[in-house]
Amino acid sequence: MILDSINRTNDIKEVGAGDLDELAQEIRDFLIEKISVNGGHLGSNLGAVELTMALHLAADLPTDRIVWDVGHQSYTHKILTGRKDEFDTLRKYGGLSGFPKRRESNCDAFDTGHSSTSISAGLGLAKARDLAGEDYGIYAVIGDGALTGGMAYEALNNAAELKTNYVIVLNDNNMSIAENVGGMSSYLQDIRTADAYRNFKMGLEDALNRIPGGVAVVDRLKKYKSSFKQLVVPGMFFEDMGITYLGPVDGHDIKAMVKVFKEARRYPKCVIVHVLTHKGKGYAPAERHPARFHGAEPFDIETGLPAVNRTKANYTDVFSTVMCKLGERNEKVCAITAAMPDGTGLKRFSRKFPERFFDVGIAEEHAVTFAAGLAAGGYIPIVAIYSSFLQRAYDQIIHDVCIQGLPVIFAIDRAGIVGADGETHQGIFDLSFLSSIPNMTIMAPKNKWELSDMLKFAVKLGSPVAIRYPRGLAYDGLEEYRKPIIYGQSEIIYEESEIALYAVGSMVKTAERVRMTLKNEYGKHVSLINARFVKPVDKEMLAYLSKQHKLIVTMEENVASGGFGEHVRAVVDEERLCMDVIVCALPDDYVEHGNVAILAREVKIDCESIVEKIINETTP
Amino acid sequence: MILDSINRTNDIKEVGAGDLDELAQEIRDFLIEKISVNGGHLGSNLGAVELTMALHLAADLPTDRIVWDVGHQSYTHKILTGRKDEFDTLRKYGGLSGFPKRRESNCDAFDTGHSSTSISAGLGLAKARDLAGEDYGIYAVIGDGALTGGMAYEALNNAAELKTNYVIVLNDNNMSIAENVGGMSSYLQDIRTADAYRNFKMGLEDALNRIPGGVAVVDRLKKYKSSFKQLVVPGMFFEDMGITYLGPVDGHDIKAMVKVFKEARRYPKCVIVHVLTHKGKGYAPAERHPARFHGAEPFDIETGLPAVNRTKANYTDVFSTVMCKLGERNEKVCAITAAMPDGTGLKRFSRKFPERFFDVGIAEEHAVTFAAGLAAGGYIPIVAIYSSFLQRAYDQIIHDVCIQGLPVIFAIDRAGIVGADGETHQGIFDLSFLSSIPNMTIMAPKNKWELSDMLKFAVKLGSPVAIRYPRGLAYDGLEEYRKPIIYGQSEIIYEESEIALYAVGSMVKTAERVRMTLKNEYGKHVSLINARFVKPVDKEMLAYLSKQHKLIVTMEENVASGGFGEHVRAVVDEERLCMDVIVCALPDDYVEHGNVAILAREVKIDCESIVEKIINETTP
Repeated sequence: MILDSINRTNDIKEVGAGDLDELAQEIRDFLIEKISVNGGHLGSNLGAVELTMALHLAADLPTDRIVWDVGHQSYTHKILTGRKDEFDTLRKYGGLSGFPKRRESNCDAFDTGHSSTSISAGLGLAKARDLAGEDYGIYAVIGDGALTGGMAYEALNNAAELKTNYVIVLNDNNMSIAENVGGMSSYLQDIRTADAYRNFKMGLEDALNRIPGGVAVVDRLKKYKSSFKQLVVPGMFFEDMGITYLGPVDGHDIKAMVKVFKEARRYPKCVIVHVLTHKGKGYAPAERHPARFHGAEPFDIETGLPAVNRTKANYTDVFSTVMCKLGERNEKVCAITAAMPDGTGLKRFSRKFPERFFDVGIAEEHAVTFAAGLAAGGYIPIVAIYSSFLQRAYDQIIHDVCIQGLPVIFAIDRAGIVGADGETHQGIFDLSFLSSIPNMTIMAPKNKWELSDMLKFAVKLGSPVAIRYPRGLAYDGLEEYRKPIIYGQSEIIYEESEIALYAVGSMVKTAERVRMTLKNEYGKHVSLINARFVKPVDKEMLAYLSKQHKLIVTMEENVASGGFGEHVRAVVDEERLCMDVIVCALPDDYVEHGNVAILAREVKIDCESIVEKIINETTP
Repeated sequence: MILDSINRTNDIKEVGAGDLDELAQEIRDFLIEKISVNGGHLGSNLGAVELTMALHLAADLPTDRIVWDVGHQSYTHKILTGRKDEFDTLRKYGGLSGFPKRRESNCDAFDTGHSSTSISAGLGLAKARDLAGEDYGIYAVIGDGALTGGMAYEALNNAAELKTNYVIVLNDNNMSIAENVGGMSSYLQDIRTADAYRNFKMGLEDALNRIPGGVAVVDRLKKYKSSFKQLVVPGMFFEDMGITYLGPVDGHDIKAMVKVFKEARRYPKCVIVHVLTHKGKGYAPAERHPARFHGAEPFDIETGLPAVNRTKANYTDVFSTVMCKLGERNEKVCAITAAMPDGTGLKRFSRKFPERFFDVGIAEEHAVTFAAGLAAGGYIPIVAIYSSFLQRAYDQIIHDVCIQGLPVIFAIDRAGIVGADGETHQGIFDLSFLSSIPNMTIMAPKNKWELSDMLKFAVKLGSPVAIRYPRGLAYDGLEEYRKPIIYGQSEIIYEESEIALYAVGSMVKTAERVRMTLKNEYGKHVSLINARFVKPVDKEMLAYLSKQHKLIVTMEENVASGGFGEHVRAVVDEERLCMDVIVCALPDDYVEHGNVAILAREVKIDCESIVEKIINETTP
């Protein structure tokens, strides 16, 4: 195995030119094997094997810097920088991250996770390099999907002014996670098939040269440099901004890429190298089903089918089903995704109601303001965005939705601890940032039926509302507790006295276990209340509870700062209610990657930690 | 006066074609007169007089919809839609807003205030129109400065897919508030001088036609439509995305614009009309000093000089001075603005240290991640962004700065109530959204010396830190209280007992008055503590205060939810400190435009309201 010789950064440079394709194949096999066991991002990594190898061959690491946009395509980079042997720990607690991490390697120049940040970060590194009077290479590797994100364009606009070298590698696989959308995508598609242009250009020059007087026309053409370039260069879009365009180049031809990457370093300005890759390359199931193999669960290599057959619905499935019903019942209901029709569960809606479904690209800011426009036009848009990505649209929620009180519904999937994707993807801030916004209502369902009820309620509400629910299986307990949703009202599930557990969404399930432990092992009397509404806080419920309870324990999968517990505490304090308050929330820290149960224990929102906290506080 | 006949929407359509230029002049005079008294956005409005008139002539209001990007250029629109007589109340409490407001007029299709939202909102309105099977016109009017904002590009990318009509009017004055920057700007500049292109194109076709065999080449050129277009159309950048480009057209030629606006409505797709305007047009001082007359204080029409000569420094001035000192002392210090070198006070720094100054355009997201890149490269970036605009970069602060703990300093001007600009510009959420972020430190200075001390402290801190300070005069009281800044420690200014006023930044000044009132009128013993640090909360101080005080009163110019008071309350509660807590913060609501003192009273954070609250709570 050639891969056996790859143990440290730059070992790849010792591999003979004739062996590189074989090494690429071995890396592919390695990736498929490891990801089939642990899960992870397969398609994007298979597509970027040669691209990464070529970058490592062309660049001088760790002196040169590579910033990986999103970063889920950095597995080959990890293999080539001494982390091959840690791949069995990939995305596990305490193990290798699925994203670049500066703390993992001096070859990881910048941490990533969300889309479209690499050009900005790389430009910052480039300016720092220039100020220090140095001259190493800086490469930002960004997908064509990520290029639909506005901040990538903001950065391109700024990078165009650079008077020193900076290389942007456009890894164009003609995909976001799903089909790519938008004007930029069709433009890149035009370039992909740009042979026509080049043949035409050659033909034109040739033809003109053969015509009497034509030579003068060619000269004249060339004098009008910009106009002539239009005929010569397919990447005029970038040239127009002042960025040199090189390409397109075959992203599976290592030699060709090494050559163009080296060439790109010669320009004293920002250069885009347009590399055409194939997502899932070399593994037929991933080539056929790119969305499914984007972030894959463990799978059978032979068949490509999931290793574990899921029999129960997750919250995304429930959302998906309810959306179709809502779409049927109310023709004003629209659905919006920022490039994740599969991940958010909107695919079925998009098939049934294509005219009311909008995939706007990786563009959360636009998604939200676009929804506000739809709402101002009389429609009821449901914007489905993962919790950690909705952070991108905080200002738009304030400024475009809530100031005007427009009836936009936010369906916030992946709220709370998400597990293997780690700190950039944990959805642990939404209750805080949404609570701060006037005119916003926030709900969280305790189980799958309540998600359905809340969505139906939201459609009728007529003002901004967010519903947040976690990654993973939808809780199907507590089916018998299904009182109608009433605005601002929490739901009493078990009513006793002494201690009231006041839980938000996913924590109701944990609270059931906490309650049984407190009752069975400690002989406590314990009520369980499902918050339902995080905002507004149910003041009447708190006043009512304070009559028979001496302690209220809030439980939420969100940081404490600005979260549900702080708001409950404020009400208890302001209303002078005679109850102690214990807030069980996440600490003021980021949450690593790993198994959700392990992480919950680490951050002390698991049953045992909460019981311990309650017992400690209530024991004199 | 022709203007006398303009009293209702569409009255302009009754004005004779020959009188339109005269009307434009009268509107200009009206604007200059009104703004010279009340202050307001002058330059952008003077530039857009004819553009607005032409839109009103071409469109059918209120059936057609106009979305004004940012919205500060909508004064002529307000004049033409029946609001002329309210101009004396402009930007005053209870008066006309300086921005479009749906509640003000059925001709205001969407509320704006922040930059770069109009294309998204307009696209939402367009889709709503299409779904409803209607066919009215929708116009988004966006400046070339706002076009540097990423979400404008996200929206363009999405709008390119539209199969129905949608008109984007690019109001190109070659300016943001300051000089425009970036690749897009130089591209537009190229188009502005695009006569060369057109002459060339005509010349080429002509030349080819005259050459034997040349006709065939022209045919061949025309067959390759895209390539040929490059020669024909200056706005290829937009055409590349799939958007029809019309222009450029003279933005002060009403007749020409009416024609092109009508023409633009004929395409069943997204159309950009490129209009060239001159900021400050018709008023010499505003043409000469566009930045100063962007958002102008009252001024003398004759001289253009401010009506009131400011003799005291505001916080921006202080920041400006300190930045120059920091730049001198530490060559790692860099400064970043998102298109507001004047407003943020960075102009002087930019002149002294041009190589360490970065104006990235209206691009807050990129600004923050770019800063993170600079920090990762060993530099100390100070990002100066107004509080309400920093909302745009919430995710980037979490994801690109704080997860990696990079030493980026946020200088947050206009934090708290800003006054005349109103609800979109109030800086009342930053303490909440920043507090939720792990690894972030938040400070607020009580007076001008402390702003200086805090900036110096921040430069040495080595981790993410935000300093927030208000709009307006820098407080120059309490000069004698200038103990060194120590991480996480508040400052006792007056130490007594009974009641402790615990004030954040600007509220220290108010707290002095509250204290004197409580002492003199109510005989209370009152301590005054300057929080200095909003995050982390000074737990030791709270424990210390709890020994001699039975009540602590927090005071902040921020919403209560997630703000300083809630965090103090959490500590008092968790540490079981024996003190009551009163939180004086802004209610869960937006704050209108108007005089700052009036607004403070309205939201009950003025001295009198706070005293009343304390007396009510402490009187048994």
